[in-house]
Amino acid sequence: MTTQGRFIVVEGLEGAGKTSAIRTIEQWLNEHQIKFISTREPGGTPLAEQIRMLVKQVQDEQVAPETELLLMYASRVQLVKTVIQPALQRGCWVLGDRHDLSSRAYQGGGRQLDETLITTIRQAVLGQLTPDLTLYLDIDPAIGLQRAQARGELDRIELEQLAFFQRTRAKYQQIAAAEPHIITIDASQSIEQVQRQILNALQQAYQHGSLRPDV
Amino acid sequence: MTTQGRFIVVEGLEGAGKTSAIRTIEQWLNEHQIKFISTREPGGTPLAEQIRMLVKQVQDEQVAPETELLLMYASRVQLVKTVIQPALQRGCWVLGDRHDLSSRAYQGGGRQLDETLITTIRQAVLGQLTPDLTLYLDIDPAIGLQRAQARGELDRIELEQLAFFQRTRAKYQQIAAAEPHIITIDASQSIEQVQRQILNALQQAYQHGSLRPDV
Ligand SMILES: Nc1ncnc2c1ncn2[C@@H]1O[C@H](COP(=O)(O)OP(=O)(O)O)[C@@H](O)[C@H]1O
Ligand SMILES: Nc1ncnc2c1ncn2[C@@H]1O[C@H](COP(=O)(O)OP(=O)(O)O)[C@@H](O)[C@H]1O
Ligand SMILES: [Mg+2]
Ligand SMILES: [Mg+2]
Repeated sequence: MTTQGRFIVVEGLEGAGKTSAIRTIEQWLNEHQIKFISTREPGGTPLAEQIRMLVKQVQDEQVAPETELLLMYASRVQLVKTVIQPALQRGCWVLGDRHDLSSRAYQGGGRQLDETLITTIRQAVLGQLTPDLTLYLDIDPAIGLQRAQARGELDRIELEQLAFFQRTRAKYQQIAAAEPHIITIDASQSIEQVQRQILNALQQAYQHGSLRPDV
Repeated sequence: MTTQGRFIVVEGLEGAGKTSAIRTIEQWLNEHQIKFISTREPGGTPLAEQIRMLVKQVQDEQVAPETELLLMYASRVQLVKTVIQPALQRGCWVLGDRHDLSSRAYQGGGRQLDETLITTIRQAVLGQLTPDLTLYLDIDPAIGLQRAQARGELDRIELEQLAFFQRTRAKYQQIAAAEPHIITIDASQSIEQVQRQILNALQQAYQHGSLRPDV
């Protein structure tokens, strides 16, 4: 019997440094000769990527917060059922650029949707799947958006007011403080410092925590 | 104070005659000088129409039943929040080519998704909205699909096996029998007979039932 793979997720606001962190983690996984796949959300399958486009593109109409929430979960459940769960079951690790915590922070905090609504939908369609380790890169949205802007044109969500991202950050911080599998990393530090803390967190979890190979 | 508009929905399998029924009802509404809008699901707003395309187009991957369900509800909640509810509130009637009953029949019956899952999502995002009158056009799927095929190429859902539509029909019939606001019409009859029964049902509901103008 193969052991189940582990599920590592990187979270944080735009420009927090998630994609950079993913590169660091991929290198660490390769060094440990761990078989893994990388995913991103929303997206990660051809259909889910099309849903991602619908969510991100600027629309002529008001997008109801509930519509956004259901599109995010439609993308997520497609990725989970067709990619993440099959990979974990065959012992492959999964490295996610965003996952469920993003909906709790953006749609719950930013859009101020009822937390019970989000929990209800998550449990109804995803069941008990939870990351083994989540690295939350905490950044002041003013700094994060500045970094993200340097990448090019902003999408529908990136165009939100600063207050939206402040509510999103506050929700991220609140959930991270309450759930032990989430490690908060101060992403205002230099890239080198952030990298070092990510590697420390991985090593800790690998030797003593939720990423131990033989648990 | 304006009275709330009424919400009439036409339901049934592909080729049952929904679009033809809509034409009949539109004529009746015009004759009674009732202000109304017509909608269709999935779809009915620019974003919801894009979701409709995602659902209907043949995908390279397996579409998880839960993904399909959430896309249907994403489309529905967008239409309800931005079109249906505002119209009803300003006293305008709404005539729907499909609505929530389709998800209960197709995703519940056809895809065999858990009924509690569907109910949970519906209540979480739509609350108490229920049509005042639903006309369910009951047809043997073998006949309905034959009629629909004459229209041209089949989409991802129309390409399902006959057994899928038989399960969907059975669920339609079961719900229609249990819920008094749903009137079942035998859609295997001639177009003229179906039309006559639709007009009877409207007239009944208008004079004595759920469509009465002053209730
Ligand atoms: N700690 C950091 N300090 C300064 N710049 C950073 C830091 N981390 C990432 N960046 C830069 O910020 C930009 C956005 O980083 P990225 O990893 O794409 O963030 P995200 O994926 O979270 O949106 C990139 O140009 C990246 O090089
Ligand atoms: N009662 C009927 N008997 C025979 N043909 C019908 C009947 N009702 C509709 N049709 C034809 O069947 C086809 C599908 O009808 P349509 O109203 O488009 O169904 P739906 O909208 O439910 O898919 C059309 O060509 C229509 O003219
Ligand atoms: Mg990124
Ligand atoms: Mg039609």
